[in-house]
Amino acid sequence: MSTPFKTIGLLARRRGTDIIDSVVAVEESLRELGFTCCVEAETAALLPAAERRVIPREALGQAVDLVVVVGGDGSLLGIGREMANTGVPVVGVNRGGLGFLAAIAPHEIHTKISDILGGHYEIEDHFLLAAGAVHDGELGPLRTALNDIVVSPGSRTRMMEFALWVDGEYVYDQRSDGLIVASPTGSTAYALSAGGPIMHPGLDAIVIVPMFPHTLTSRPLVVPGDATIKLELLNAQDAYPQASFDSQVHMRLEIGDSIQIQKHPAPLKLLYPSGHSFYESCRSKLDWASRLGGQKKLS
Amino acid sequence: MSTPFKTIGLLARRRGTDIIDSVVAVEESLRELGFTCCVEAETAALLPAAERRVIPREALGQAVDLVVVVGGDGSLLGIGREMANTGVPVVGVNRGGLGFLAAIAPHEIHTKISDILGGHYEIEDHFLLAAGAVHDGELGPLRTALNDIVVSPGSRTRMMEFALWVDGEYVYDQRSDGLIVASPTGSTAYALSAGGPIMHPGLDAIVIVPMFPHTLTSRPLVVPGDATIKLELLNAQDAYPQASFDSQVHMRLEIGDSIQIQKHPAPLKLLYPSGHSFYESCRSKLDWASRLGGQKKLS
Amino acid sequence: MSTPFKTIGLLARRRGTDIIDSVVAVEESLRELGFTCCVEAETAALLPAAERRVIPREALGQAVDLVVVVGGDGSLLGIGREMANTGVPVVGVNRGGLGFLAAIAPHEIHTKISDILGGHYEIEDHFLLAAGAVHDGELGPLRTALNDIVVSPGSRTRMMEFALWVDGEYVYDQRSDGLIVASPTGSTAYALSAGGPIMHPGLDAIVIVPMFPHTLTSRPLVVPGDATIKLELLNAQDAYPQASFDSQVHMRLEIGDSIQIQKHPAPLKLLYPSGHSFYESCRSKLDWASRLGGQKKLS
Amino acid sequence: MSTPFKTIGLLARRRGTDIIDSVVAVEESLRELGFTCCVEAETAALLPAAERRVIPREALGQAVDLVVVVGGDGSLLGIGREMANTGVPVVGVNRGGLGFLAAIAPHEIHTKISDILGGHYEIEDHFLLAAGAVHDGELGPLRTALNDIVVSPGSRTRMMEFALWVDGEYVYDQRSDGLIVASPTGSTAYALSAGGPIMHPGLDAIVIVPMFPHTLTSRPLVVPGDATIKLELLNAQDAYPQASFDSQVHMRLEIGDSIQIQKHPAPLKLLYPSGHSFYESCRSKLDWASRLGGQKKLS
Repeated sequence: MSTPFKTIGLLARRRGTDIIDSVVAVEESLRELGFTCCVEAETAALLPAAERRVIPREALGQAVDLVVVVGGDGSLLGIGREMANTGVPVVGVNRGGLGFLAAIAPHEIHTKISDILGGHYEIEDHFLLAAGAVHDGELGPLRTALNDIVVSPGSRTRMMEFALWVDGEYVYDQRSDGLIVASPTGSTAYALSAGGPIMHPGLDAIVIVPMFPHTLTSRPLVVPGDATIKLELLNAQDAYPQASFDSQVHMRLEIGDSIQIQKHPAPLKLLYPSGHSFYESCRSKLDWASRLGGQKKLS
Repeated sequence: MSTPFKTIGLLARRRGTDIIDSVVAVEESLRELGFTCCVEAETAALLPAAERRVIPREALGQAVDLVVVVGGDGSLLGIGREMANTGVPVVGVNRGGLGFLAAIAPHEIHTKISDILGGHYEIEDHFLLAAGAVHDGELGPLRTALNDIVVSPGSRTRMMEFALWVDGEYVYDQRSDGLIVASPTGSTAYALSAGGPIMHPGLDAIVIVPMFPHTLTSRPLVVPGDATIKLELLNAQDAYPQASFDSQVHMRLEIGDSIQIQKHPAPLKLLYPSGHSFYESCRSKLDWASRLGGQKKLS
Repeated sequence: MSTPFKTIGLLARRRGTDIIDSVVAVEESLRELGFTCCVEAETAALLPAAERRVIPREALGQAVDLVVVVGGDGSLLGIGREMANTGVPVVGVNRGGLGFLAAIAPHEIHTKISDILGGHYEIEDHFLLAAGAVHDGELGPLRTALNDIVVSPGSRTRMMEFALWVDGEYVYDQRSDGLIVASPTGSTAYALSAGGPIMHPGLDAIVIVPMFPHTLTSRPLVVPGDATIKLELLNAQDAYPQASFDSQVHMRLEIGDSIQIQKHPAPLKLLYPSGHSFYESCRSKLDWASRLGGQKKLS
Repeated sequence: MSTPFKTIGLLARRRGTDIIDSVVAVEESLRELGFTCCVEAETAALLPAAERRVIPREALGQAVDLVVVVGGDGSLLGIGREMANTGVPVVGVNRGGLGFLAAIAPHEIHTKISDILGGHYEIEDHFLLAAGAVHDGELGPLRTALNDIVVSPGSRTRMMEFALWVDGEYVYDQRSDGLIVASPTGSTAYALSAGGPIMHPGLDAIVIVPMFPHTLTSRPLVVPGDATIKLELLNAQDAYPQASFDSQVHMRLEIGDSIQIQKHPAPLKLLYPSGHSFYESCRSKLDWASRLGGQKKLS
């Protein structure tokens, strides 16, 4: 079985011996299998000296057909936001067991890389959210998030007030610690801690989760994936309001600003070895079904 | 502005002077506006004697172009399940203020009926769920629900065990008081009490909400609208397990049975006066935005 | 170190080889240590023939100084309700690992029994709840619960209406699936599944947890341990309302009845091996602290 | 009926015509009833010129027998923390309707002040929490809170790690947005937004509520009122960890610090007009019982 992948990019976002061991293991597998491997420059600097193709990060999208990211779901968020625009698929090697995004465990690197490059894989589109601030009527630059955009007061007192519109329809005013707007991908991350539902990755929907709202009747709200979500910052005591993208990138906002959130046109193409199941990740990561003893049956 | 509605059916599902007053008000409006009104037979029996076209309930779908239901969201559930298959749109007159489904308040009957028949309306498709029991390998008759299908032990001890599959993928075993499977329409009803998210009616999704699960990591799960959901009943102490459809129709199940749930092919065509907003219903019914004083602003 | 325990009762409430093995292990430990063991009659019938003192269940309280119950938290509930009135302490042998009530794991029976009878134990008072129905102004017989009293409609439609008073003060009317009234002991059982807080066993408090209330502003309510709680059943469609005691004993109620709940005067004296920690049970049973890797530190 | 109150202090913490009107109304009532009124100096500066006794804030505790605070629950928090140590009771005049702490509505000032000074009142002890940071083994100065102490990372990324001990027993390590430790008084404030239970003011208990914990099994935990709660800050990315007292006073913490929280020895003596009911405040503030129509009955 043939695959469209000829040149493979390799990248790690954190230091640590376990990470480096995994990077080296991927590199060796690719060499054995006869594929060309391009190591991202900063990653290469961490590796033992060897002859290899090294490539600057910003050139990855042009140079490779597939990117392997070592380092877990957190690392995949950053590279995922970048790679979405290039259309190049990404596969993740986790640090420990199974992640929601990173689907290869360290001990199975060789087998899974072989499988994938032998054609046994699936590609799942994970959409990103894009948002920009409207200040004095002008829309500023857009930032993207794979998991979630969190609007919060960024201050000691933790409290803010805002108005919410969806597709131009007024929804509510809210006084709370902020608002989480999450994609299906992000529904198993921060939004889940805040009481949001788990959303299947195939769902075309966005969830809006209030953070400690002052009214007890506020609830998570799931809207269609093509919705335009607008928050207007009404007030925030001593606040330095901000929007956070995957908790990694932050955008300052001011009282009176609005922030507009929409699905980003280019999804991340996330690659999984064949047989991947979202629900298996849930069972593994969330300890589902762990209490009923040996009763698990297959259909 | 012309409308496709010539003959209008009229139906109430409960007794009570306020209901009868509303039915009479609708009948008068229709007469004044020059439309033909067919009153459902049981409803007609409640009304003061007058010359009118009376029609048996089961013939409504063939005889009319639009059905007006008086009596609130509960009444709309029953007639909604019936009318979905006919493709005839339904509009509801509520008992008190605004309902999620019934969009006309008693005091505005004449204005809204005139508006609608003058062409000022919107039709929203609300999909139904359909389910049947698989007993000894054979699928029994299907029942439908507009809000939700609740699988529960129907017994004093309230506890059951089941396995869940979605689209043939195993999800988990669960020990709980049961499971709620709800459409977007039902997301503001029983599923909301059980901790489920609010889903916009335009969303093509189904929410699965565990009822008092014994594991603390179970959470509401939102899956695509075309998913096939299967529960297999593993065990239920002293149980008379059942599936309830909109809490109005009940189906007996046995240990070892499975129940399969899917979107029903024919949606209910729900008619609203123009300008209807789902979020306005939320604010009205759930007291959203009621705490921030006069700060509500329009975009 | 001496202990007040001379004669030890032994009891199991379920069949199963693991249970019988544990009962035999306890019996042997007691014999070795030179204590007199009285085996409850039904339990004795399950054991291999041997010379032993057998005693009917209802005589246990008079005849022994300590009761050992084999079979987990569920078994302890039943015997705990009975033994509270006798003042005889009870210790539990669990089926698997650690329970909240049963503090001895099967593999450590000999060590722990030796420790306890050597004086290394603590006794924790766990208060019971007692409730009776008021029908036509007359208070019926009281039943007790160690975990919780659940008032529910006992019907297919699952919905009931009631009014709640605490210490004669009106609290609210509620439309819901019912109400859970739990002791601190019960706060880690059914009440926890329903969203109630975990209460330390040393707390003198009762928690009232609404079950799927129709208003979104209802919340678990914690009241002082000496409070009198009264529910008046206002309505329940097609209902056979009931109060359940630890989900094991059931009391029929009728519309118009009230049920009065108060702390029972005699607590269960629950014995634990020295060094028992409630929070360790929480970590073990609820998987607390399992996610932060090796960061756990001791003060 | 006589009361122990001779000299009454009067204080407002915010500007605004409604506040000043209420202060003047209280002053007039006291004059008419023949009591001596001492107006706090900053409050006096807001009032129309008149002959009156003015007193600096820090002298209030020595000079008066009762303090009337105008301005709602928020104002009562600040003055409540101060007055607890003096033993002088405090009564609150709310801005709008009924508050949880401020029990006099503006339109009933004269009647209620007359009632109270005629002896028709109740005094409820509301305990405070006190906390200090342990830095390099040394306990720093204590601060107090009437509602809650919130330990949080004070940073953009919102995430922190800490270990929790109660009464010297290790409870868990947690990765979360922080922890709320609340008194019964505070259980209807921020802790309620975060999913904590409502606790009756008469309860001798403290609730510990995790904020968006990364493990789904964390739950609010209620411990006895005399418990010592200790948090050790393990880690907090880019954090400026802090403890906030009633969201009004903030204490900087450092990684490796511990914070110790205990009940403060001197409670706030909160005065209510006779007939005050905590549950009535709940119904009024939380919209309890608002959905069942006219079914409310009194015992």
